[in-house]
Amino acid sequence: MIVYFPPLHARHAPPCEIFRGERVPCFETPERAAIVHEALRQRGHALREPDRDSSPFLARVHTPPYLAFLETAWARWLALDADNAGRQPFPSVWPVRSLRSDVEPGNFIAQLGLYSFDNGTPISAGTWLAAKQAADAAVSAVACLGAGEVGVFSAGRPPGHHAGRDFMGGYCFLNHAAVAAEALREAGCRRVAILDVDYHHGNGTQSLFYDRADVLFVSIHGDPRSEYPFYLGHADETGSGAGAGFNLNLPLPAGSSVADWFSALDVALARIAGFRPEALVVSLGLDTYAGDPISRFALQAADFRQLGRCLRRQNLPTAFILEGGYAVAALGVNAAGVLDGFEESCPGGPA
Amino acid sequence: MIVYFPPLHARHAPPCEIFRGERVPCFETPERAAIVHEALRQRGHALREPDRDSSPFLARVHTPPYLAFLETAWARWLALDADNAGRQPFPSVWPVRSLRSDVEPGNFIAQLGLYSFDNGTPISAGTWLAAKQAADAAVSAVACLGAGEVGVFSAGRPPGHHAGRDFMGGYCFLNHAAVAAEALREAGCRRVAILDVDYHHGNGTQSLFYDRADVLFVSIHGDPRSEYPFYLGHADETGSGAGAGFNLNLPLPAGSSVADWFSALDVALARIAGFRPEALVVSLGLDTYAGDPISRFALQAADFRQLGRCLRRQNLPTAFILEGGYAVAALGVNAAGVLDGFEESCPGGPA
Repeated sequence: MIVYFPPLHARHAPPCEIFRGERVPCFETPERAAIVHEALRQRGHALREPDRDSSPFLARVHTPPYLAFLETAWARWLALDADNAGRQPFPSVWPVRSLRSDVEPGNFIAQLGLYSFDNGTPISAGTWLAAKQAADAAVSAVACLGAGEVGVFSAGRPPGHHAGRDFMGGYCFLNHAAVAAEALREAGCRRVAILDVDYHHGNGTQSLFYDRADVLFVSIHGDPRSEYPFYLGHADETGSGAGAGFNLNLPLPAGSSVADWFSALDVALARIAGFRPEALVVSLGLDTYAGDPISRFALQAADFRQLGRCLRRQNLPTAFILEGGYAVAALGVNAAGVLDGFEESCPGGPA
Repeated sequence: MIVYFPPLHARHAPPCEIFRGERVPCFETPERAAIVHEALRQRGHALREPDRDSSPFLARVHTPPYLAFLETAWARWLALDADNAGRQPFPSVWPVRSLRSDVEPGNFIAQLGLYSFDNGTPISAGTWLAAKQAADAAVSAVACLGAGEVGVFSAGRPPGHHAGRDFMGGYCFLNHAAVAAEALREAGCRRVAILDVDYHHGNGTQSLFYDRADVLFVSIHGDPRSEYPFYLGHADETGSGAGAGFNLNLPLPAGSSVADWFSALDVALARIAGFRPEALVVSLGLDTYAGDPISRFALQAADFRQLGRCLRRQNLPTAFILEGGYAVAALGVNAAGVLDGFEESCPGGPA
């Protein structure tokens, strides 16, 4: 399978995030992508650097002020104080209900709060470069589908599915799955389905397409009553306006069995088949793995291969977009497993 | 002047807050109220403990789930882990736009995020007791106005004016000024004005009365483009629905002169006079003082006496509610100055 691997991912490497008031080392590290990269290379997949510019699609997904903030944030942080190169900026206050989001404060830290929904998504010097190149990888991958590939993998980081129209969060800055869906629409696909199998609900992606009937969003995830991101991902969220009926959340209790997870996948795939999409975007979180340090599902390595098989049977041009997964040592095997399962019945796949 | 001083304030004493990703000692400390208490006692004011229950008014100002959360939060924090008595709970994620606030997560930390808008308003063992007794003090003070007092002071803490219908923030948990206004309405005042002179915009109070014509909210504060709370307090916020025209914000640039501040006070008092209120609630922040460590106005001690004089000239039953002010050593003198100015032309005031 063609795999887009954006080398600039490593430029996004903040040392710490804030978790419940404590500075802790970031879970979302360059090693994550490096291990996936190496595992896929060893399996014989064709690794490529991104060759398309995602800018037109980013402009459809995100707001101009948010994109401008992200692109300039680190330079402006450095300009505030000569010592800031060795410091991390963190927000202190967030515009929840009754507070306004329509006026950008001049204060940098207040801007950071305006454009985020948590305190665990730190910016570093190369954040924009990494996130932008991951979006480029997603668009490059989609272009391969248009050129006849059945499946393609975009292995960028940081992840994207928590990023909304004008906010970062959950280690995500730009929504690469949404960018891929927009690129597929632009390429002529009348209906695009997004299947999000990350342990954490893809709140950003859902919100971006919630009122649209041309992009179906389906997600299997830990129940937000107990799991991040907590404030979206419930079963009663089914879309609004023209999008009514085009959003399907399948939350499962933390600790759900592998059998329950695959039962939910059957429901998800049936809904997708009923939608008759012309392409499928898979937000491929690997944090459903039993060994993940911050998630509570139970998939084993063999289950990722089974996931790949199930997805291949949909017989849809499929773009995989790497999302979360924090059991770093297992990420390569599990990512490769999905691709192996997908390609088993696919002529030309690796042996 | 009768001063209500709730002794349980000292039970709210969290050691640290989070400021831009760092743990720092709390600015809002028990010493703040103790110094005000002692200064007013020495000036001969009549200190009393609260003698009214604010519960009926709290139920009008805040939502039942929020009140239930606040009242039970510390006990539930302790129940989560035997070691939590020595730890502080901090939120990690906040429900900004597109995320839902209508489903309370089961996760305690997610509840904390649901019910807050910053990371600098820590809960401690006695937070509910302190905030509740401060609300009781506000209601007790208002009752004195009904009994014929011209001015009365409620010197509780933590402060209140940043607290909204269902969220804490800015060191505030229960909105005591709003509780006082509701108690005045209940006591028969047809129109109540709230003047907020804290350095920081009283976003909670504004939002609570934004659609009402019976309670006018007027605020003089640091421009939210650069000052906390950043996301509310602009001049174009004038009220909505029935409340259109009954909200007046007078933001001033950080660093504004004393003359500019008193010019804004003239505008504020003219608007209040035009409203013909039957009582006045003053959210008395003392962080307009030149020596305040986290604010940037320039009032000197004598200016607080002048503020008191200006307020007395409105000839309205006036309830002062203590809000912010973090130059601890000066708080007593400045609070006493306001009361002295207010009582100068008032028979029966201290010599």
